[in-house]
Amino acid sequence: MKNDLMDKIVSLAKRRGFVFQSSEIYGGLNGCWDYGPLGVELLNNLKQAWWRSMTYCDDIEGLDASILMHPKVWEASGHVENFTDPMVDCKECKARFRADQIEDSECGNKGYKGRKAAKCMEEGKFTDARNFNLMFKTYMGAIESEDSIAYLRPETAQGIFVNFNNVKESTRQKLPFGIAQIGKAFRNEINTKNFLFRTREFEQMEMQYFVKPGSDEEIYSGWKERRLNWWMDLGVKKEKLNFAPHPADKLAHYAKAAVDIEFEFPFGFGEIEGIHNRSDFDLSQHAKFSGKKIDYFDEQSKERFTPFVIETSAGASRGFMAILCNAYDEDEAPTSEGKSEKRTVLHFHPKLAPIKCAVFPLVNKDGLQEISHSITEDLQKSFKVFYDESGAVGRRYRRQDECGTPFCVTVDYDTLKDDTVTIRERDTMQQERIHKDKIKVYIAEKMS
Amino acid sequence: MKNDLMDKIVSLAKRRGFVFQSSEIYGGLNGCWDYGPLGVELLNNLKQAWWRSMTYCDDIEGLDASILMHPKVWEASGHVENFTDPMVDCKECKARFRADQIEDSECGNKGYKGRKAAKCMEEGKFTDARNFNLMFKTYMGAIESEDSIAYLRPETAQGIFVNFNNVKESTRQKLPFGIAQIGKAFRNEINTKNFLFRTREFEQMEMQYFVKPGSDEEIYSGWKERRLNWWMDLGVKKEKLNFAPHPADKLAHYAKAAVDIEFEFPFGFGEIEGIHNRSDFDLSQHAKFSGKKIDYFDEQSKERFTPFVIETSAGASRGFMAILCNAYDEDEAPTSEGKSEKRTVLHFHPKLAPIKCAVFPLVNKDGLQEISHSITEDLQKSFKVFYDESGAVGRRYRRQDECGTPFCVTVDYDTLKDDTVTIRERDTMQQERIHKDKIKVYIAEKMS
Repeated sequence: MKNDLMDKIVSLAKRRGFVFQSSEIYGGLNGCWDYGPLGVELLNNLKQAWWRSMTYCDDIEGLDASILMHPKVWEASGHVENFTDPMVDCKECKARFRADQIEDSECGNKGYKGRKAAKCMEEGKFTDARNFNLMFKTYMGAIESEDSIAYLRPETAQGIFVNFNNVKESTRQKLPFGIAQIGKAFRNEINTKNFLFRTREFEQMEMQYFVKPGSDEEIYSGWKERRLNWWMDLGVKKEKLNFAPHPADKLAHYAKAAVDIEFEFPFGFGEIEGIHNRSDFDLSQHAKFSGKKIDYFDEQSKERFTPFVIETSAGASRGFMAILCNAYDEDEAPTSEGKSEKRTVLHFHPKLAPIKCAVFPLVNKDGLQEISHSITEDLQKSFKVFYDESGAVGRRYRRQDECGTPFCVTVDYDTLKDDTVTIRERDTMQQERIHKDKIKVYIAEKMS
Repeated sequence: MKNDLMDKIVSLAKRRGFVFQSSEIYGGLNGCWDYGPLGVELLNNLKQAWWRSMTYCDDIEGLDASILMHPKVWEASGHVENFTDPMVDCKECKARFRADQIEDSECGNKGYKGRKAAKCMEEGKFTDARNFNLMFKTYMGAIESEDSIAYLRPETAQGIFVNFNNVKESTRQKLPFGIAQIGKAFRNEINTKNFLFRTREFEQMEMQYFVKPGSDEEIYSGWKERRLNWWMDLGVKKEKLNFAPHPADKLAHYAKAAVDIEFEFPFGFGEIEGIHNRSDFDLSQHAKFSGKKIDYFDEQSKERFTPFVIETSAGASRGFMAILCNAYDEDEAPTSEGKSEKRTVLHFHPKLAPIKCAVFPLVNKDGLQEISHSITEDLQKSFKVFYDESGAVGRRYRRQDECGTPFCVTVDYDTLKDDTVTIRERDTMQQERIHKDKIKVYIAEKMS
């Protein structure tokens, strides 16, 4: 039942141009996805909502660090040593498996397809487990050698830590202040799964908030609440969100406290954001590994110290998928014959909806197309707007419902007389009559 | 003189938080740069202006394809075979040089620093030239083998070509139509140079416009003009822009015609965008290599054919640098004592400026700070706004001039009486008095 729902969402995502498999014509690339015309708008709107909520204020600065970073960064952060999965190799068929997932694994190699890994283990075919680093490695410069290794960042956070001094000095910010960043990260996951949930290429929206030690616990609690509220303000249903605190004995090596915000996907609850108290781990490590002073001088108390970091780390790709699953619905819509028909609808918040408004001429004659085009062009100065003149108006509504378009404007014969149009709201399916010059303000108000 | 100007711009870029060296605390990573708080805003504004101009219309769809792509993509595109530089190795010191740049190269290896490559060549120390591929290579999955190679895309265009069918089918677009994409690309350049101009990690803004063969030449000419005008609309000076057509005997393997839009940087004219008639090369190659049908059926003429592609490929990173260089100026500003002082100013178009408005209380007492904060918070709902209460107002103007902030609002004792503020325009340095509730509309109008 629930997997059926996931299948429906994945299918809609492809059919309507939200998400395609990467390199699909070549059989796809495992763990990578492409965002289609509607998907890229939804993703951009999500990222922009986050960016504005974070950086359009006095105490948080933006940043966009490069994906390729110096290999020392990942020694300091602990990724070279700790960012690993234990792997075993099968001596017979040469397949490799995650040592902690033997029970669920099957061989995919030629001549052995479908063979249970657990059986091979019983038969003693496996090597001892070895740690396999999840970072993608490449070589920079003309020569491939140990000296020219560069990693694709497995998280955006480190780009912020290594720029702490640069941001502090160029902006003259005083503690507490944050640095926010949106960007791609890469992890060579062995088991990719659940559509956009566990992928090899993904996007993060991370904010590191630098605070005075001692104030960290209170600020951590504050951000925890703020972040949950942010997702709810975007229309994510309260009952689908959950806090999952990390137990003290399972904290990551850098963390003093950590909690996940989880969303209930069709396959179950899964993390869409983590809030972490990273203590002074990161800045201290980078100071140690770089030999540079990375600290803060408090003018008031005349103290010099290493700030603590409260991190809010949200997945843009996972958030996108949560927004899509949260919006998906099937209900009934009235037909023009007074009956009702099934409709699939995406209840996106107007702020996030890929297309803000569709414009339809009721019929394709008597100048209705020209007025519709002129309304479309005027609205396109402000929003993404879709013009559609094909098929019955009811069918055009159904298409826009599937795209999650919150408003449809129909131009009819009354428009010729008094310049009014019908504007129909997606969720209530209610229609009202407004002057065509009021459409822009009407939509802008609903978006805020 | 001109290099001096470049140095000043690079220095300002660091001091004010536009651009930092990547992984700077570790000595930097060659060919990679980080965008600081002001830089990321400028870059985002540039990308958003492009995105809106491209996709907020009826005939161009957006896309965001993954950076990691299937290796077959790059066989089909010709990159595996052709995207190479000829390299020679020095048998003595093991340094590698571009064979076509021996004259300008010096050895950087230990014990040989500064030695002229040309001299080593004369002395017969070099191997024969071999082709060195500029794509960054990595391995995907648990095992490093020929079968698991993945490349970081060296251009975003191919993500569009391989999605042609997906976009066509999900959007029901008819020819001519375009697909636009903004994203990172990576090239393992041997000689990085000129700040953001030739880097290893960079961002592109590409649009591929699919047309019926025969209509390609006219559409190519149309885009050529449109794209030049777009840069000028963003305030880039006409005399700093130039068309550089590629001579017929120097066209890339895929091109039927090509022209660069060049900008005059302090180091000379350099390409910021290319407009290319790529013929049906790309779609035909992908059809051939994937075995999939990639074509278009014209309902009117009942013909089936492979569309031609007119490409507009702009550098977001290079465009950013052009906008920065174009905006840089040194002039004179009046002081409060009626004298004049030198000022450094960035004349960004208000649409592109990182900070739209700064808000100053004239003095830090009598409630002027509270009013200033409340104006700031109200404006921050719409724009990036900076509050500053430190130092003389003249000094605060100078800081904002260096940041390229187009408007500064000062709250003074008259504000207490009649709710008006002084708004000062960056370029003219003219001040006018307006009601505080009018600031938002005032700025929004100047941004359009």
